[in-house]
Amino acid sequence: MPAWLKHYRRDLLAGDIGAGIIVALMLIPQGMAYAIVAGLPPVAGLYASILPAVAYAMFGSSMVQSIGPAAITALMVASALAGLAPAGSALYATLAAQLALMAGAVLFLSGLFRLGFLSSFLSRPVMSGFTTGAALLIAEGQLAPLLGVDSLASVTPAGSPGAAIGLGSLLALWLAKTSLARLLAKAGMRRSWADIAARLAPVFVLGVAAAAVVYLGWAGGAVRTVGSVPAGLPDIALVTSADHWRALLTPSLLIAFMIFLTSQSAAQSLAQRRGERIDTNSELLGLGAANLATAVSGGFVVSGSISRSAVNYDAGANTPLASVFSAGLLLLALVAPTGWLSFLPMPALAATIIVAVMGMIDLVTLKQAWGYDRGDAGALLATMAGVLLLGVEAGVVVGVVLSLATLLWRSSRPHIAVIGKIPGSEHFRNVQRHQVETLPGVLLLRIDAGLFFGNIDAVIDRLNKLLGERQQRGETMRHVVLVMSGVNLVDMTGLYALNELNNSLKQQGITLNLSEVTGPVMDRLQRSGLLRHKLSGEVYLSTAQAFRELAALTSATPSAT
Amino acid sequence: MPAWLKHYRRDLLAGDIGAGIIVALMLIPQGMAYAIVAGLPPVAGLYASILPAVAYAMFGSSMVQSIGPAAITALMVASALAGLAPAGSALYATLAAQLALMAGAVLFLSGLFRLGFLSSFLSRPVMSGFTTGAALLIAEGQLAPLLGVDSLASVTPAGSPGAAIGLGSLLALWLAKTSLARLLAKAGMRRSWADIAARLAPVFVLGVAAAAVVYLGWAGGAVRTVGSVPAGLPDIALVTSADHWRALLTPSLLIAFMIFLTSQSAAQSLAQRRGERIDTNSELLGLGAANLATAVSGGFVVSGSISRSAVNYDAGANTPLASVFSAGLLLLALVAPTGWLSFLPMPALAATIIVAVMGMIDLVTLKQAWGYDRGDAGALLATMAGVLLLGVEAGVVVGVVLSLATLLWRSSRPHIAVIGKIPGSEHFRNVQRHQVETLPGVLLLRIDAGLFFGNIDAVIDRLNKLLGERQQRGETMRHVVLVMSGVNLVDMTGLYALNELNNSLKQQGITLNLSEVTGPVMDRLQRSGLLRHKLSGEVYLSTAQAFRELAALTSATPSAT
Repeated sequence: MPAWLKHYRRDLLAGDIGAGIIVALMLIPQGMAYAIVAGLPPVAGLYASILPAVAYAMFGSSMVQSIGPAAITALMVASALAGLAPAGSALYATLAAQLALMAGAVLFLSGLFRLGFLSSFLSRPVMSGFTTGAALLIAEGQLAPLLGVDSLASVTPAGSPGAAIGLGSLLALWLAKTSLARLLAKAGMRRSWADIAARLAPVFVLGVAAAAVVYLGWAGGAVRTVGSVPAGLPDIALVTSADHWRALLTPSLLIAFMIFLTSQSAAQSLAQRRGERIDTNSELLGLGAANLATAVSGGFVVSGSISRSAVNYDAGANTPLASVFSAGLLLLALVAPTGWLSFLPMPALAATIIVAVMGMIDLVTLKQAWGYDRGDAGALLATMAGVLLLGVEAGVVVGVVLSLATLLWRSSRPHIAVIGKIPGSEHFRNVQRHQVETLPGVLLLRIDAGLFFGNIDAVIDRLNKLLGERQQRGETMRHVVLVMSGVNLVDMTGLYALNELNNSLKQQGITLNLSEVTGPVMDRLQRSGLLRHKLSGEVYLSTAQAFRELAALTSATPSAT
Repeated sequence: MPAWLKHYRRDLLAGDIGAGIIVALMLIPQGMAYAIVAGLPPVAGLYASILPAVAYAMFGSSMVQSIGPAAITALMVASALAGLAPAGSALYATLAAQLALMAGAVLFLSGLFRLGFLSSFLSRPVMSGFTTGAALLIAEGQLAPLLGVDSLASVTPAGSPGAAIGLGSLLALWLAKTSLARLLAKAGMRRSWADIAARLAPVFVLGVAAAAVVYLGWAGGAVRTVGSVPAGLPDIALVTSADHWRALLTPSLLIAFMIFLTSQSAAQSLAQRRGERIDTNSELLGLGAANLATAVSGGFVVSGSISRSAVNYDAGANTPLASVFSAGLLLLALVAPTGWLSFLPMPALAATIIVAVMGMIDLVTLKQAWGYDRGDAGALLATMAGVLLLGVEAGVVVGVVLSLATLLWRSSRPHIAVIGKIPGSEHFRNVQRHQVETLPGVLLLRIDAGLFFGNIDAVIDRLNKLLGERQQRGETMRHVVLVMSGVNLVDMTGLYALNELNNSLKQQGITLNLSEVTGPVMDRLQRSGLLRHKLSGEVYLSTAQAFRELAALTSATPSAT
């Protein structure tokens, strides 16, 4: 039993029930809309909103995360299944469930193996570029359904009942999104409730649109509607060929990665507002369980939703019980007669999708990145271009590669400072930024990073360059002191390089000394034998001690720089 | 004109000529042997030793690097071409040249785009595992030729002339390798010259073996020999189909990477001994030029050789002119009647290959890694297993992935310390390692890494955890100070996270303060607006100032921990 359930208090109940109702009202249009984006019948979006929410409540770590279908992962499902089965076929639905099963297994195993740290390897600008690109792709795909046609080529300037419903819904949703909360607040509603009411606009717009098509006699004829929805829960099939499993392997990995990234950022931003901590590995377990649950309930991949989770929180959710209530309400809606769903007009659903993804287009980050860091702005644009030109999967890969390249580049440039003594103190500071004393023939170098294969070449290179510069100025170098206070790790490659450095300095008549070696690093260096037998210089406890003793050794007086 | 040539001094000439002769004598057997490993006629190894050496001399940065065929890259050529053409065919030779052309272009462009930093991303244990695996694969492939048979299945216990020549050569080479230098030194030869003489054993053993097969009438009959070698330089063909170019793309990237890694370590270790610096980007240009040169001279990929470069250095090479002399000698050997080459027995060449690669099997690193860092030892074994079980290309990929995973893991765990004031001083140190004073309600956190997307989550997580612990102990937290002396970069993701941290702390009634922000980081933060309008706390010049002012603000007296 999860901790929140064990310690559940009666006074939390009202908030959880209220939030549960509101989120259920949001989930009905969203679930159906994203099922359409995924190429599935709208009802699959409802299937995907019930069991997964309960599974997440049992395993997940966020108190207010709302689990269900989401725009980006729905697009990725459509992209993964495009070549494998015709949209709408039974095989397509089976493959969608199978993809969720595989992504769920990947997430669950990643949680067990504590791979949560992988989440931090897409920078926010890259993520922003990816999201904007995906939103544009989704919106573009909904233009024809919005206008009630099969392809944009068959749009007629005269208009059609479908286009009227679609564009009317779009206008209503847009006005609701941009002005409704303000108007309600002006009319005296509490601001937080006005915001929530505005979020429920899609369910009202869909209701009005459905009523209109029924009243006008357009339902299923002049305007495409959702059509008959089987009551109750679906038949499940998960058996396909080995070829299908193989074809879905890469997409399932990419989708699992995106599920984690989007959910994690939703969970984290709300946890910060609640002053809580998210455990990334529990989060992985919860997301894995939710996707395994969606696979066995005829749905498709689910993830946390930033917008729904925020509403859930604002509406007073205290625990995952709110999501369980939502799930219960959706289940009731499905086992009750589902005739009401069949009249929902497809153009109105397309309008809800377009308005939803328009909110994901993020030009603010691009603008800020442009002003703050051109490299980040370039990565954002490249990832967006990757999504738009090469597709959503290639876009993820472009983003990961760009982020990794940045990481490699940064790791290979560790922070190193030549330091000197602040006169009359025992402080040592960067010679470039402070008035400090140095000893002729002695180089004090502070290394502010662990020494490992990714940066050791750069460190040695920098050291040799500094020695070379001093020697060219006619200074006879005698001692090098590496100040190791910031070095929390020396790996095998670093150890070898230190050994070689020690030997090559020795040949030049220069001793290699260490100071302020941290405890764990010292233990390891001693075990390796570098310190006991080979080090040409000394290991000093403090840099001040090194400075004193080397001043005595070289009979030099400190000179100010 | 390269700098070494412009400033060439007469007194360097003797050393360069001597080293040039010795390296040429090493290159004849090595070049032929590695051509065999690559699946090419032995003479291709000589073609690959002439023009590339001259090209490297013009563009490269190492003074003593010896360029030519090498074992690992030869194995990678064989692996890349295995499915594309039968070994020994004209197409095979064309594809080998084309592969060198592509690898050369990759290297040259990497040099132009200054991608040298990528070299540091294979850790030494991973490299050691890769080399050992490749050496075992090569040795295994030479067992049949050593015994003078086509496959090990056809070995007869009775032996054969081929096996006699092969095993005899193997024994002679093994003894020379393990004892000759010692024996010569005992007999009065200078140690360094004894070492060099021992390195020349292969050329003598091959000569004796050739004389033996000729004398015994086995040449080309009972014992396979190199056979007729065309005099002069080869015809060049580089035109193949687009399919071939595509098939060679990935191998050429992997081979370029390995060429760079092996050459770089050879160049670097010798440069350290000479007190010189290697510019990685010039090194890339040199290696690229050398491989473009081998492509147009009928050879195959070339790289720097650690063993040959060391001999070159020990034999007195001062500048790349030594390599140019070697190349000239090899050219003379090719344009002179080449009949002498045709009698070289293949089993003896197999013996030289086996003895050469046995020296690459590196168990010392495994043993040291096992004692020093189990993770490094595991990466070594996994890479070796990858090469042996999946092949040499998959082995490179396994190694890169393992190294990257280590890098990701390490980047996600930045060094962070809670610090306090050393009584009576203005020093601040880790509270876990020093007797320091702290202020109740104030958290001083020193961050020893740039804040960027790869570690910012970990930093925020750690901070929230520390605050939670303090609050659980009943301490009311008022101020957080991030000591930024070690933060040399805050990227967009870091900036956003700082902003969110600032807001979430504010909601909890905690101010966020910064101290010791470095100049460049400060400039950027100010430009971003975080500092001017939003920061809930202050920016302090020094941590001591922060401590003083926050002590006054909280009217707290420092307490010792």
